[in-house]
Amino acid sequence: MYVGKSVNRVDAYDKVTGRAKYTEDFIRNGAYTAKILHSTIAHGKVISIDTSKAEKLEGIIKIITCFDVPKHSFPTAGHPWSVDENHQDIADRRLLNEHVRYYGDDIAVVIAENEVQALQALKLIEVEYEEYEAVFDPIESMNSNSTPIHEETPNNIIGHTKNRFGNYEEAIKEKGLIKIDTWYETPIVQHSHIENHIAYAYEEQGKIVVVASTQIPHIVRRVCGQALGISWGKIRIVKPYIGGGFGNKQDALYEPLVAYLTTQVGGHPVKLDSTREETFVSSRTRHSEKIHIISYVRSDGTFVARKLELYANNGGYASHGHSIAAKGTNCFHQLYPCDNIEADGYTVYTNLPTAGAMRGYGIPQTMFAFESHLDDVALKLGLDPIELRIQNIMPKGFKDGFSRNENYYDSFREAIAVGRRAIDYDKKREEYKNQSGNIRRGVGLGCFWYNTGVYPISVETSSCRMVLNQDGSVQVQLGETEIGQGGDTAFSQMAADSIGVPLDDIHIVSTQDTDVTPFGLGAYASRQTYMASFSITNTAKIFKEKIIDRARKELEFAPKNLDLVDGMIIRKTDNRQLMSLGELATIALYDNKDSDHISAESTYTIRNNAFSFGASFAEVEVDIALGKVKILRLVNVHDCGKLINPRLAEAQAHGGMSMAVGFALSEELKYNDKGKILNNNLLDYKLSTTMDHPNFEVYFIENPEPTSPYNTKSLGEPPTCSPAPAIRNAILNATGVRVNQCPMTPHVLFPLFKEAGLIENDYEKEMKYENKAWSVENV
Amino acid sequence: MYVGKSVNRVDAYDKVTGRAKYTEDFIRNGAYTAKILHSTIAHGKVISIDTSKAEKLEGIIKIITCFDVPKHSFPTAGHPWSVDENHQDIADRRLLNEHVRYYGDDIAVVIAENEVQALQALKLIEVEYEEYEAVFDPIESMNSNSTPIHEETPNNIIGHTKNRFGNYEEAIKEKGLIKIDTWYETPIVQHSHIENHIAYAYEEQGKIVVVASTQIPHIVRRVCGQALGISWGKIRIVKPYIGGGFGNKQDALYEPLVAYLTTQVGGHPVKLDSTREETFVSSRTRHSEKIHIISYVRSDGTFVARKLELYANNGGYASHGHSIAAKGTNCFHQLYPCDNIEADGYTVYTNLPTAGAMRGYGIPQTMFAFESHLDDVALKLGLDPIELRIQNIMPKGFKDGFSRNENYYDSFREAIAVGRRAIDYDKKREEYKNQSGNIRRGVGLGCFWYNTGVYPISVETSSCRMVLNQDGSVQVQLGETEIGQGGDTAFSQMAADSIGVPLDDIHIVSTQDTDVTPFGLGAYASRQTYMASFSITNTAKIFKEKIIDRARKELEFAPKNLDLVDGMIIRKTDNRQLMSLGELATIALYDNKDSDHISAESTYTIRNNAFSFGASFAEVEVDIALGKVKILRLVNVHDCGKLINPRLAEAQAHGGMSMAVGFALSEELKYNDKGKILNNNLLDYKLSTTMDHPNFEVYFIENPEPTSPYNTKSLGEPPTCSPAPAIRNAILNATGVRVNQCPMTPHVLFPLFKEAGLIENDYEKEMKYENKAWSVENV
Repeated sequence: MYVGKSVNRVDAYDKVTGRAKYTEDFIRNGAYTAKILHSTIAHGKVISIDTSKAEKLEGIIKIITCFDVPKHSFPTAGHPWSVDENHQDIADRRLLNEHVRYYGDDIAVVIAENEVQALQALKLIEVEYEEYEAVFDPIESMNSNSTPIHEETPNNIIGHTKNRFGNYEEAIKEKGLIKIDTWYETPIVQHSHIENHIAYAYEEQGKIVVVASTQIPHIVRRVCGQALGISWGKIRIVKPYIGGGFGNKQDALYEPLVAYLTTQVGGHPVKLDSTREETFVSSRTRHSEKIHIISYVRSDGTFVARKLELYANNGGYASHGHSIAAKGTNCFHQLYPCDNIEADGYTVYTNLPTAGAMRGYGIPQTMFAFESHLDDVALKLGLDPIELRIQNIMPKGFKDGFSRNENYYDSFREAIAVGRRAIDYDKKREEYKNQSGNIRRGVGLGCFWYNTGVYPISVETSSCRMVLNQDGSVQVQLGETEIGQGGDTAFSQMAADSIGVPLDDIHIVSTQDTDVTPFGLGAYASRQTYMASFSITNTAKIFKEKIIDRARKELEFAPKNLDLVDGMIIRKTDNRQLMSLGELATIALYDNKDSDHISAESTYTIRNNAFSFGASFAEVEVDIALGKVKILRLVNVHDCGKLINPRLAEAQAHGGMSMAVGFALSEELKYNDKGKILNNNLLDYKLSTTMDHPNFEVYFIENPEPTSPYNTKSLGEPPTCSPAPAIRNAILNATGVRVNQCPMTPHVLFPLFKEAGLIENDYEKEMKYENKAWSVENV
Repeated sequence: MYVGKSVNRVDAYDKVTGRAKYTEDFIRNGAYTAKILHSTIAHGKVISIDTSKAEKLEGIIKIITCFDVPKHSFPTAGHPWSVDENHQDIADRRLLNEHVRYYGDDIAVVIAENEVQALQALKLIEVEYEEYEAVFDPIESMNSNSTPIHEETPNNIIGHTKNRFGNYEEAIKEKGLIKIDTWYETPIVQHSHIENHIAYAYEEQGKIVVVASTQIPHIVRRVCGQALGISWGKIRIVKPYIGGGFGNKQDALYEPLVAYLTTQVGGHPVKLDSTREETFVSSRTRHSEKIHIISYVRSDGTFVARKLELYANNGGYASHGHSIAAKGTNCFHQLYPCDNIEADGYTVYTNLPTAGAMRGYGIPQTMFAFESHLDDVALKLGLDPIELRIQNIMPKGFKDGFSRNENYYDSFREAIAVGRRAIDYDKKREEYKNQSGNIRRGVGLGCFWYNTGVYPISVETSSCRMVLNQDGSVQVQLGETEIGQGGDTAFSQMAADSIGVPLDDIHIVSTQDTDVTPFGLGAYASRQTYMASFSITNTAKIFKEKIIDRARKELEFAPKNLDLVDGMIIRKTDNRQLMSLGELATIALYDNKDSDHISAESTYTIRNNAFSFGASFAEVEVDIALGKVKILRLVNVHDCGKLINPRLAEAQAHGGMSMAVGFALSEELKYNDKGKILNNNLLDYKLSTTMDHPNFEVYFIENPEPTSPYNTKSLGEPPTCSPAPAIRNAILNATGVRVNQCPMTPHVLFPLFKEAGLIENDYEKEMKYENKAWSVENV
């Protein structure tokens, strides 16, 4: 059995040796290069574009402007399609846009023989705009009277989720309740995957072929069809290895545009890739959110009523629409169930870069607010934060009314117990009481829960095909994608066990090609290992039945007495090896009278979801005068069911924790009053690096998930959800100061520490120079 | 219905616009180039190879010699594998050979950064040989006492087929029989496909990937595995469009070598392509044969006994082994059944380039001899050649004992009748009696029969997969290959009709990739349209059942009342269109509760074969003094069952007739006494061109073949089989001279015409200069 073992990644050798092929490696000599002209205003209308000077340059093949492209809109979200119109994503953008919605919007494209020519041409294009008032704050945007960002959305509100449980207004009338009312805010964050967006298109065999760095090849096929207004089967998407995505490639970004461009140059190959600077501005971001939470509690820590108002800043285009804020709103009641709830989430257009999917999909924001709020409540009541949580936390047996998910174990309490022990919480808590001086330490925690996949909101389906080779090895094709997370390795382990062959005999077909790859939805919603486990085991069952049936014909044994174990046909009665699968495959294939090329293919519709649970524990050291936070320890505890590959699971957690550290302490896209992004590069954008990390500690509670064949559930996004509030609560523990916004930079902490009387005047003087230096960045 | 219609080729647009991708288009920047060092002796042993000077050149990555490669032999024939060892092809060559068997054998390879460097290095390699006596004639070779060409074959005989029917020795004792005893000889011919051999290999994902210009990707995969001694599933073959093959790419030629080379440079991509000069010498050729036929006939034209001796010159390596001569020997008794037959065919190694598969696979040689012989018999008996044929020809209802093929119609007589009428045979025959002077005309005919595929000698199997898109279009994957013949178009037509969708909705996946393409044997033996018709119709049946079943679920009609016609689900009771296949596919795919990605895959084992029949009629004009033959008309008549695409069928026939004209009149590889090929280029090798052709005329008798779903049978090779004897017999009709060897060049004709007294002394003088010029070529 390979499941549960830390086998090496199946793509390790190719990636280490540079053999692994990425989109760039598919580009043929002579392909054209396309470069996009981005708007230099945040809101307005393109009146005219003069390309005459640019067109005179050598090597310019064609310049296409927002006036040339098809006049219909399409959606970009990487969601499964729905035949129910109410369930379809918002179609609010064209391939190039006349109505410009953010500083960096796409208004024209130059196609040239090479990149230098294209970039030179961009500089010579002259654009005339009619400028509208721009708005950058979601609450302001909802209430703005200026030109709507999208004509069809007069109030700029993309969506509003309204949850009501019990009777909040009645409940808060109870005497003696304590009210805790706080606002929290999270930043615009960018995914910062290693490989920028790149797509490459050409026409061939009556189809437009797009090779793209995407998480979702089959979905991108459909979106390209919609964008170009052509039949979806006339699009073919090829997805090679990709250098990360984290949700940013769960959108059809420039694939539709490049698909269109090749049709404008007679099907000639066209490459369109983004620079890092473009990726920061003109791809997708994590939503900045303003979150308002009011709790009414009894002095014993009982929650009587709770209210949430969430405002998600979606930027210029809908992308994933309201689903991210909806998820952040809908998760409000489960973690600490409460009888009387009011929750309202709003997703609002603003004139900033478009927010879309990013690892955690709205949960890191809500968890930062909610788990910070928990500590605020505990502080107010004089309770220990752990005790308050344990008292209120989702109990074993809890059933979610909507997803019908059940908490089959007491995973939360277990996770908290493991983390508590690991970080030596109680001792530290005691030790860090009554600190004084500039350097202070604290411990804190944050919890989270996370779904696995999107059922029942959208369809959850996964298909798999297995093809037997003459040597008994097997190609396995899946629409689910390797995006650096190790998916291919997990799929291979499950396939080897499900079929009964050595792992080396599984050849996972890593590159998806929508022409021949069984339909799959792709990498998002932490769904793949869970979903693929169904399609792999189901297909393996059919595949194995065919193999055993053929073995029966060759060996004349009853099928029930035959099995396939470790690549050998055995008879079960005495486990004797009768023949190898390779021998059987060869005999079957070359049988003159009854040749059999054994393969199997099946689709599995999953009508389950599964709660993943966990908690983060942080220990920090705060330099109060410098407003600097050093993470001494960060512990994540996860119940994601049984692990397929412990080493990869740990690596998955490390990555998510790293991302959460950046979210908590340093990362933020900054913009000026024109809406222009100021730190669109990896020097000025303070990505969290190993220099900022302690040695991440990860613990797993492997409560077997009963719905899935390998007892597993989501782990891709969960590690990102709870570190930020744990760090925030550790700072609170260290300093007594409640920090209600991320990232918790010196800029944020310094005034708070000063206000709390922790900083003397001497320090203030010393800091002046540093403040000045920082302010330069905002000019 | 599309079958039977002359729809446009599905690859026409891509090929005309240059979009179509060939192996060369797959080669990445930075790939290494490999070049082969060929032997400069015809027979001997490599004693040493000094690469030291070559290695010092810039850009030389590695030089590999015959002393470095694995010390085991492998076969190269593009035959299906057999688990029966006696049925396996002869493994008689290594990747590079120490024992050199022909002038041009492969003894070393230079891998360099580019081609110029590689070619320079080749010149600096010094080789020392021990030379053995070389033999070039098959009959001499069988009786030679010198060093065997292959140690394990002491008499140089690769195979001997011995057929005996009745009692020849007894039968010829009958009184009054007339004996006709003649030798015939055919030349070494080369395929001269447009695209030379090219293969490109690299390592990826634990496999060696070979992109190759081949007719037989799945077979090449197996041969590469054998050659390298590695598991067959660790090889992946990708076959893009190819520029012709004609059987030369039904061998694993340099694919095994290039697969090996990449393993020697760490999996780096390596390209290995042949120049035209190399292709002429170091690929494969058509067997030169010496054929001896003796007939004993009664004066009324009855064949009493017949004898065949056939000697096929196989060159240095076995390639397809004895199968080609065996086919030429085994076809001796069917066409004009005779009670007493002796037939012996020998395939013999010589020190010439290796002969292998070429369009017609031994039949053009035997038919040239046999159909010439028929006219010789007719001449001797004073009978009209047509009358002699009709009297003896395979009758309706004839059953072949071996293949169990049946002649279901009176196709031969019909074909002869059609051709006779078309060329106005009887009138011409009368007109051309008693000619005199230098320019004379004649008409003649030749018949042939041909199998369809290789059953029951080898397995005949074909697999197909169909994948439904959301727009109702369908990808069709087959292991059978488009090699320029229009296979993809025929497959698409059959698929469209079998499924019930418009032709535009069939997306044939043209490029085979052995990792994901259903197993198929490839393009040879004129098998593909016939074989694929089984796998396509069978898979379409399963596919359609799945579609109808899903339609039933959505529409709540009984399945028996539903059908799929022209891409629409209809109810049969009133033919009303209920929904499009696209709608159904989309509803099925995105069904939350029961998602269905509809696809089907199946393998069909074919246990049939089918006779294709036909005849050629030629009218020629002979300039006796110049020994030149001008073809005035050439008519081919075919019964290949029902036509899938008449225009493509006609084009197929034109190509075969062109090839036959070259075989008859001009093409021949010439060599000197060292075994060195002298005309290894398209200037000196006299390929038949449109300048040599009349407007080819083709007639089809579409007797529906009862074994196949679309009533079709072989047409790929048949057109090549009978034109040469028709031309020869027309020359006989024109001049009274029996020409018993091909090509019938002035060199051959002049002495024969002189001997027959047709050329006066005056002409002889005039010709002297010309003879001298010709003789230069042989020096």
